[in-house]
Amino acid sequence: MARKSVLASQSTDFPQWYQDVLAKAELADNGPVRGTMVIRPYGYSIWERMQAELDARIKAAGVPNAYFPLFIPESYLNREAAHVEGFSPELAVVTHGGGKLLDEPVVVRPTSETIINAYFSKWIQSYRDLPFLINQWANVVRWELRPRLFLRTTEFLWQEGHTAHMTEADAREFALQILHDVYEDFMVNVLAVPILTGRKTERERFSGATTTWTCEAMMRDGKALQMGTSHELGQNFARAFNTTFLDESGYEEHVWQTSWGASSRLMGALVMAHGDDNGLRIPPLLAPIQVVVVVVRDEDGAADKAAAIAAQLSAAGLRSQLDGRTDTSFGRRVVDWELKGVPVRVEVGPRELNAGEVVLVRRDSGTKTTVPLAGLEAAVRTTLAEAQSALLAEALERRRAGTAEVATVAEAQEASQTGFATIALRVLGTEGETQLNRAGVTVRLLTRPDGSLPGADEDGPDAELMAVVARAY
Amino acid sequence: MARKSVLASQSTDFPQWYQDVLAKAELADNGPVRGTMVIRPYGYSIWERMQAELDARIKAAGVPNAYFPLFIPESYLNREAAHVEGFSPELAVVTHGGGKLLDEPVVVRPTSETIINAYFSKWIQSYRDLPFLINQWANVVRWELRPRLFLRTTEFLWQEGHTAHMTEADAREFALQILHDVYEDFMVNVLAVPILTGRKTERERFSGATTTWTCEAMMRDGKALQMGTSHELGQNFARAFNTTFLDESGYEEHVWQTSWGASSRLMGALVMAHGDDNGLRIPPLLAPIQVVVVVVRDEDGAADKAAAIAAQLSAAGLRSQLDGRTDTSFGRRVVDWELKGVPVRVEVGPRELNAGEVVLVRRDSGTKTTVPLAGLEAAVRTTLAEAQSALLAEALERRRAGTAEVATVAEAQEASQTGFATIALRVLGTEGETQLNRAGVTVRLLTRPDGSLPGADEDGPDAELMAVVARAY
Repeated sequence: MARKSVLASQSTDFPQWYQDVLAKAELADNGPVRGTMVIRPYGYSIWERMQAELDARIKAAGVPNAYFPLFIPESYLNREAAHVEGFSPELAVVTHGGGKLLDEPVVVRPTSETIINAYFSKWIQSYRDLPFLINQWANVVRWELRPRLFLRTTEFLWQEGHTAHMTEADAREFALQILHDVYEDFMVNVLAVPILTGRKTERERFSGATTTWTCEAMMRDGKALQMGTSHELGQNFARAFNTTFLDESGYEEHVWQTSWGASSRLMGALVMAHGDDNGLRIPPLLAPIQVVVVVVRDEDGAADKAAAIAAQLSAAGLRSQLDGRTDTSFGRRVVDWELKGVPVRVEVGPRELNAGEVVLVRRDSGTKTTVPLAGLEAAVRTTLAEAQSALLAEALERRRAGTAEVATVAEAQEASQTGFATIALRVLGTEGETQLNRAGVTVRLLTRPDGSLPGADEDGPDAELMAVVARAY
Repeated sequence: MARKSVLASQSTDFPQWYQDVLAKAELADNGPVRGTMVIRPYGYSIWERMQAELDARIKAAGVPNAYFPLFIPESYLNREAAHVEGFSPELAVVTHGGGKLLDEPVVVRPTSETIINAYFSKWIQSYRDLPFLINQWANVVRWELRPRLFLRTTEFLWQEGHTAHMTEADAREFALQILHDVYEDFMVNVLAVPILTGRKTERERFSGATTTWTCEAMMRDGKALQMGTSHELGQNFARAFNTTFLDESGYEEHVWQTSWGASSRLMGALVMAHGDDNGLRIPPLLAPIQVVVVVVRDEDGAADKAAAIAAQLSAAGLRSQLDGRTDTSFGRRVVDWELKGVPVRVEVGPRELNAGEVVLVRRDSGTKTTVPLAGLEAAVRTTLAEAQSALLAEALERRRAGTAEVATVAEAQEASQTGFATIALRVLGTEGETQLNRAGVTVRLLTRPDGSLPGADEDGPDAELMAVVARAY
């Protein structure tokens, strides 16, 4: 029985499908100022779960939260040359406040390295103060010429971590700890999105960083999405803001720093890595609603029974919701829950109830099973665990199938039209990178041939590095 | 033994004491752009606890979170006359974005009624969609001429709730539900700050509201602080944005709305309602650290024992922290924990340990008791509960003692120099209000003589209302 879809088909028009899902699942809407975004309650409830999961990992890494101002004096940005060069074209500038022209224009933060260093330089005195670790959850603004909801918006929500260390080695170790223990762990084990980790090329790295480490994932259209980055800043901002400490011998030294961020674009990753032609598919560990209990028809006490089942599942610690809106057709409600990607649907109808059973439907696979009421909670738990694993396995297989090992730049360009290509950095070179860039393809990251991280300075002809190239969001 | 204080004395110079506490307890710092604020990790950890407590109550009232853009087209504000008149002098305006002059300037949100109504008008179609409930946690900007950290800052953090209802009565009921079940409950039962609830005079109400309900508290210098407000907006914004619904008879009607907010100024309330000459005193239910276990001297295994005690208290669900920094003097660390207002301090020294005991110190009262190790967890729990009650009782008694019932406007003005004055509204009148305003005194709220809320339209000579007047932050 073919069902008329409420969404464009992924295979026919992926961008339209993406827009349709955001609208129909009520995730987000365009704001009135170009490039801005309204995150609707259902979308925000998913973002809150992402925040909670990331925040717990950030705190477990020993980093407390703080809050720095939205407004940064324009002069602060000018202190670090590469930084201002990178961000100038994207700035929003406040020229008037309280009805008056401001003496010095202020920029709306595009990121907070500069303003945070202005305080680190006050707060950090001695090696005893190091490492100095800060995170903030905040909105930032980067003027976008080609905005797309969640992926590139003029204003977005994110966390940005900023740390200062005694040595370059300490800073590197911490940048990689965040990359693995915070980002990779969340992305793989909660978001169920397999990622590649690696180093950015000089061209792709953060403005002001010495090294950028990245997490990259393949979306279902074969394009790459940068999911989160962790930067080594060297002493660039420390020199610009004179952030120094007295070492154990009493010498004044500049601190070594990191910064790292993951943003509301993870919402876009969720949609594009797992969604199908029926809508979202949310991994159970992330889902704000893990199981929805749907009344098929309110006969023979089905509505009361469904309410009792939903309450029982909630009491058992499962994030559950009742759908007793029997004034809307059952089919329409099923379409809605599939759009919203709720991992497990329990259908409670009079016929099955009479047999002491309910129907359990898995969103990711569509599998339906009839389950005796007595075993429902256990069946739901098993199904949630299976769905979590299956989504990761499916995305991993999709990436494997969509990645080609190639030997020439031309082949890399061709393979990038449908997926990822891996090519020896020695073959690619900076000329090859330029050639690919002209064709809309970028180097997503560099790794060693076995996929492990290269050293920060592992470069040049002897390094034997591999580049992963792709079209990207 | 008198101790040299690190703070100005409250009785000598309350404003200086306030600044000293914020700096020495490491709560906040001034931002580089005038009026902006840096919330430091310890301050932010308290704010996170406030957010969690408020957010749980907001969700329990059935209101989900969402997120609307920071940038609002200037034209939106102009649609509601009273609203734009009230906020125009405080706006920050972005004129340039992405290196170009914008066609239409955008304002940085001072509050979000306008932009949210632009979406309510799209999302709300029928009476079935009502009530429509939204909250957001966000930063807002109001240019401040006389900024003071947490109390009046150009940028501040808050939650703002926005709701739409079928009838005026529904909207009123919801506005009052938020006032009592969210704000009053949090303020009294968690923050331990007694509040008066009442109605604002026309002059003091929110720009664009028909009625403003408020929570007001007395600070330890006798001044009032507005802690949170819940507004009935009538159909003002609904008319400006054409936010309508089809009622059950098929007639198109404008919705009735509320909005309500509480902000990071609650941090100022915490400091000024409970703090003393030794620093903060945080109510145990709010405190991010409820109990600190301090090693007096590391002899006879005191440090190991203290670590075990802290771990045991944490495992028992108490928010505990170990202070084993024995390279800093014990006295200096005690001063620091008193500054930070941690409710209970457990002092672990070799002498008491040999007797199987520790010393337990209550921050609010300074009471010290020697407690056998076996009974420590129970003693800590009892002490936390006592401290929570004692802080509320102390603040209540202080307000009682600081409130005068007066019969003339002149007496009201005099009593306001040290505390609150209550005066019959019939005696005060709008002329009396003007006279008080000139002397820096404002009407904080109107109540019935028994302290209960007046009706929204309970006005005029027969109403028998009382006004509470005070100097205010």
